[in-house]
Amino acid sequence: MTKPYVLGIDIGGTNTVFGIVDARGSVIASGAIKTAKHPVFEDYIDEIYVEATKLIEANDAVGKIGGIGVGAPNANYYTGKIIDAANLIWKGELDIAAQLEAKFGIPVAITNDANAAAIGEMTYGAARGMRDFIMITLGTGVGSGVVANGQMIYGADGLAGELGHCIVRRGGRPCGCGRCGCLETYTSATGVKRSALEFLEASPNVPSLLRNIPSADLTSKDVYDAAIQGDEIAKNVFEFTGRVLGESLADFAAFSSPEAFVIFGGLAKSGEMLFKPMREAFDKNALSFHRGKVKILSSELKEADAAVLGASALGWDAMRLADTNNTL
Amino acid sequence: MTKPYVLGIDIGGTNTVFGIVDARGSVIASGAIKTAKHPVFEDYIDEIYVEATKLIEANDAVGKIGGIGVGAPNANYYTGKIIDAANLIWKGELDIAAQLEAKFGIPVAITNDANAAAIGEMTYGAARGMRDFIMITLGTGVGSGVVANGQMIYGADGLAGELGHCIVRRGGRPCGCGRCGCLETYTSATGVKRSALEFLEASPNVPSLLRNIPSADLTSKDVYDAAIQGDEIAKNVFEFTGRVLGESLADFAAFSSPEAFVIFGGLAKSGEMLFKPMREAFDKNALSFHRGKVKILSSELKEADAAVLGASALGWDAMRLADTNNTL
Repeated sequence: MTKPYVLGIDIGGTNTVFGIVDARGSVIASGAIKTAKHPVFEDYIDEIYVEATKLIEANDAVGKIGGIGVGAPNANYYTGKIIDAANLIWKGELDIAAQLEAKFGIPVAITNDANAAAIGEMTYGAARGMRDFIMITLGTGVGSGVVANGQMIYGADGLAGELGHCIVRRGGRPCGCGRCGCLETYTSATGVKRSALEFLEASPNVPSLLRNIPSADLTSKDVYDAAIQGDEIAKNVFEFTGRVLGESLADFAAFSSPEAFVIFGGLAKSGEMLFKPMREAFDKNALSFHRGKVKILSSELKEADAAVLGASALGWDAMRLADTNNTL
Repeated sequence: MTKPYVLGIDIGGTNTVFGIVDARGSVIASGAIKTAKHPVFEDYIDEIYVEATKLIEANDAVGKIGGIGVGAPNANYYTGKIIDAANLIWKGELDIAAQLEAKFGIPVAITNDANAAAIGEMTYGAARGMRDFIMITLGTGVGSGVVANGQMIYGADGLAGELGHCIVRRGGRPCGCGRCGCLETYTSATGVKRSALEFLEASPNVPSLLRNIPSADLTSKDVYDAAIQGDEIAKNVFEFTGRVLGESLADFAAFSSPEAFVIFGGLAKSGEMLFKPMREAFDKNALSFHRGKVKILSSELKEADAAVLGASALGWDAMRLADTNNTL
């Protein structure tokens, strides 16, 4: 029997947020624990179980949760494992899906944060009803999720959709992945900061509000605030960031010809400051039949809920898959 | 009832080749007509019908053809139409699937040549049993077909998989598509010729066998023959071509994390001359979890049959789809 709720769990380096979500994408209730509190991974799973169970009981949802979806760094949909996640304290392979499933007795599916965001957008957000779209997450890094033929593309190894690591400037900026010139080094929040520092250094005689902020403290938000106030260098940084992103989207469109790109994450809130140069660069660089046709949209998920919603959306998949297996 | 044969029709600018194919990918019989003979498109369809019917009758295949698959330039899987194909004499929209279906009374599916090649490779060739792979066709241009989750990616508009038009050198060589720096301008047969002419001009004092051939007559085959004989410039051209291709494959892998790339077309026959620098560049530029893991394979389809086989493979899809619709 189909149950009315799913549980979404979003695992970040600092916080683990979980929530009970209904089919329309309303977060009924949510809670959080500190991710790094337990040196032993099994103790961490225990705390999730204890705290989520309290939440489920308090909200009269016992027996009503059909599936659990987990969004986590380096999470592999096929194996149900997290492998060598740089920002988690536990190293090696973490058999998270199996452990949660054993605890809760509810089917579990996992994927990485960016894929979870894409599934969330398809289930509850801007990509509802779309069969082909690409989600781009502009955060500390650049994540992505590719949906084609109405399905998430996981690839042969469960690690597809790493568009933030397409090389957009050969021999360009060093990236955390060990290579150079990745999209992420230009269009993440960190990339915006790097551009600002580069531009300030390249034009020492151009006055800028950003010169009042120590390099170490400078954030992409500072650059945005300065750009809004008309700061020339800050405006150039957004112009450049949007252009690199638009050029890249044009190539991504050549791959899967999506109906839309959905842009999510802190930088997406920069609005036209980012979207205008991005759209212009897309139209200038895209194949003729994509120009003016592929939509470039902002995420419709509320940012506070987005991580849990994305993870939860995968819970419906877990439930359906388990139902199908049970009836076979 | 499932029928034992399909008809594959490959439409090129010069020749239209068609063949009766069985489920194991054997071409039972084939024929050809001149594509540009009839100024009126309907007369061309008539001739295909007349000639293919003769072939079907001569091979005791009347009533045994379950589906017709067509590979053609600018062919849209969703609409069944060819639109503005540069190398065909009929302009505008050609309603080819509907016209063939009306003539033959057999379900018809169409797609572009590169997608047909990918489906052929998946059905009969090197990608049998793979759910995630990318086919790259190195011919006069560079075509591609992307398969993910066991399905061809057609995209929102039926025009996905234009990897030959990913921009690999921003501001690079002018491309027939009106943009600059497309992969196709470097790694097609034409691209190899362009590289050779560039390299010859850039190093006027380096002796080369290629200097004996007038520019207009030079082909990628000449460059290959010279490279085999140890010609320095010709070897550099293949080194460069393989490198650009390998770099690009590394980015494509970040997209859909395929199990393999299958390389097809005239240049693919260059063997290690092309594959060695391609593999090296792939491993140097790919994400760590792709290095040494994603296979780079040569097509297993016999070149003489490949076009018809690719098109025919889509005929099985057309048959299945019609069967499904009939039983709904």
